[in-house]
Amino acid sequence: MSEFSFKVLATDGAARRGEISTPRGGIRTPAFMPVGTAATVKAMLPEHVRAAGADIVLGNTYHLMLRPGAERVASLGGLHKFMNWPRPILTDSGGFQVMSLAKLRKIEEKGVTFSSHLDGSKFELTPERAIEIQSLLGADISMQLDECVRLPATEAEIDKAMRLSLRWAERCKRAFEGAAPGRALFGIVQGGDALPLRQESARALVNIGFHGYAIGGLAVGEPQHTMLAMIEASTPELPQDKPRYLMGVGEPDDLLHAVARGIDMFDCVLPTRAGRHALAYTRFGKLNLKNARFADDNRPLDEESNCPAARDYSRAYLHHLVKSNEILGSVLLTWANIAYYQDLMEGMRNAIPSGKLAEFSAEAREGWARGLT
Amino acid sequence: MSEFSFKVLATDGAARRGEISTPRGGIRTPAFMPVGTAATVKAMLPEHVRAAGADIVLGNTYHLMLRPGAERVASLGGLHKFMNWPRPILTDSGGFQVMSLAKLRKIEEKGVTFSSHLDGSKFELTPERAIEIQSLLGADISMQLDECVRLPATEAEIDKAMRLSLRWAERCKRAFEGAAPGRALFGIVQGGDALPLRQESARALVNIGFHGYAIGGLAVGEPQHTMLAMIEASTPELPQDKPRYLMGVGEPDDLLHAVARGIDMFDCVLPTRAGRHALAYTRFGKLNLKNARFADDNRPLDEESNCPAARDYSRAYLHHLVKSNEILGSVLLTWANIAYYQDLMEGMRNAIPSGKLAEFSAEAREGWARGLT
Repeated sequence: MSEFSFKVLATDGAARRGEISTPRGGIRTPAFMPVGTAATVKAMLPEHVRAAGADIVLGNTYHLMLRPGAERVASLGGLHKFMNWPRPILTDSGGFQVMSLAKLRKIEEKGVTFSSHLDGSKFELTPERAIEIQSLLGADISMQLDECVRLPATEAEIDKAMRLSLRWAERCKRAFEGAAPGRALFGIVQGGDALPLRQESARALVNIGFHGYAIGGLAVGEPQHTMLAMIEASTPELPQDKPRYLMGVGEPDDLLHAVARGIDMFDCVLPTRAGRHALAYTRFGKLNLKNARFADDNRPLDEESNCPAARDYSRAYLHHLVKSNEILGSVLLTWANIAYYQDLMEGMRNAIPSGKLAEFSAEAREGWARGLT
Repeated sequence: MSEFSFKVLATDGAARRGEISTPRGGIRTPAFMPVGTAATVKAMLPEHVRAAGADIVLGNTYHLMLRPGAERVASLGGLHKFMNWPRPILTDSGGFQVMSLAKLRKIEEKGVTFSSHLDGSKFELTPERAIEIQSLLGADISMQLDECVRLPATEAEIDKAMRLSLRWAERCKRAFEGAAPGRALFGIVQGGDALPLRQESARALVNIGFHGYAIGGLAVGEPQHTMLAMIEASTPELPQDKPRYLMGVGEPDDLLHAVARGIDMFDCVLPTRAGRHALAYTRFGKLNLKNARFADDNRPLDEESNCPAARDYSRAYLHHLVKSNEILGSVLLTWANIAYYQDLMEGMRNAIPSGKLAEFSAEAREGWARGLT
């Protein structure tokens, strides 16, 4: 299994149940990739990420180029060894973080220059360097460098960024030639909230040709219906036999909607970030464990969960931990959230082959709406 | 095994290899008890505390009476269930923390009143209430309420606190009558750095009669030789057939010295606190993982360790995590430190029956002195 490949195993409407093969292992799709920004899925042990059901995690070019440095990670044996995660890793290209985190950034045709948000030191990120960094990290799936615009933005701004991203996509593809066998490169559909630009971006990327296609520049403040419209505009332009990755999304409800529209892969900081802020994603909706209602609640987060964090500790204990700012509170809630997201994906993967995705999604939404009983 | 009992299995000079039996399981001595202040061994999962080799953990009356409250813990099924630790728990009486943390404290014959360091609310802790709280928590080993003085202190201050602690010891013993079967109560030797007062305290406690005897009021700023002298003054007064617990100690070297002088039990925040401050206790001494020397060091903390945290992650990765303030850095270093402390205790337990404690201790000290090679 030394090649990167993708196979659709079953469909349910536009939804796909698939399998990505990589030299480092398979990825069952639809897949949710926990975010391991700085070479750690925050507050998680890698064995718990795996046990929760994750086949792949995400790493961040931007964060890792700043600290500890891509060349250093390479000399230490690559990102997989560094973070003790032997399975597939997707790295983003740094485009999004340069826009959202870096200081003094300057975007030119050549690439982007910026100052580190950590210590102000100067960096340059070109399409070629983005690919080189991801290769040094040892990414199984690399992403093209792109320019994201925040929404709302003018159509002129969106158009300009989309076209620059396309030119960068071509340069990334050239830079990726000769990459190690089995490694994949994904292009990123841009075009903000402008349907025609999304379609044009998708078509142009397919002409360049990638192992997979991401939809980027969403979940940046636009309403859910806008995001879903952009997905619906993009996916018909994308090949059926390549994986589709919706970047930075999202809430559990977003995942249900996007899978129903043919998305295969997701990443999002929500489950990990929420876990560090006393929030638990559960079958009963999102629970704020800081709430005093939990102080005497001796039930676990979810007694039917297979996740030890959700099953073996009472809500009262979790409430106590978060009120006391104990690290274990962040650890347990992050763990439970990652497990819940993985369970949700598994539920969708199981539902698609029997044509029951809509039924599964309705039940999930009913559970969230019902809340705790 | 429904009774609390202690058996000395072997000796090596004054050192003892023993076994405490409790209804919740055995405690191999000499034992190091990880500190679970607020119902959590900070940054540790209970299963990792156990896997590292701990038979017993410590809980804090002071912290738990403030938050979440002893009556609440009892209504939730007790401290063991609350923190998902089914094995023995020793609770301290709160005396030390009232002195070191609480505000506006007032010590009287009856007990101590103080304001919470969390929100200023008023509390009273009498010997009877200290026992009641520990009983509500479900402690397997309860400690008498005592008054600790900070050193240096005048002999008059030390004398006064020691005598008050003795009167409180008697009241604690009375209050403990009728405790659940198998539960134990320990007295605490006080007397600061005054040898005769230590001896007098120990003798008086033995006359009252406890299941075990602690030596308290040490590791409060005095030099190591003073601490060891106080141990040497106290232990000859204590019964051979009862466990001896040196409270709040200490550095690994302190443990070697104290075991050689007949101490059976220890607790200390050092391994957990150090783990949250980038410090690793190892066979090679104490390492500061913030140090740039580790940035490219691809070796694990200790390749011979059985602890996953010490074995499966490089020093370079740990350095990266602590430089990045990642929770996983605290988690892994705390885990490795707890494991190192437990390994050290196991080494002593294995050495004593063959008369090799001095040899084992010399080797451990040589390793610390040699450092990393």
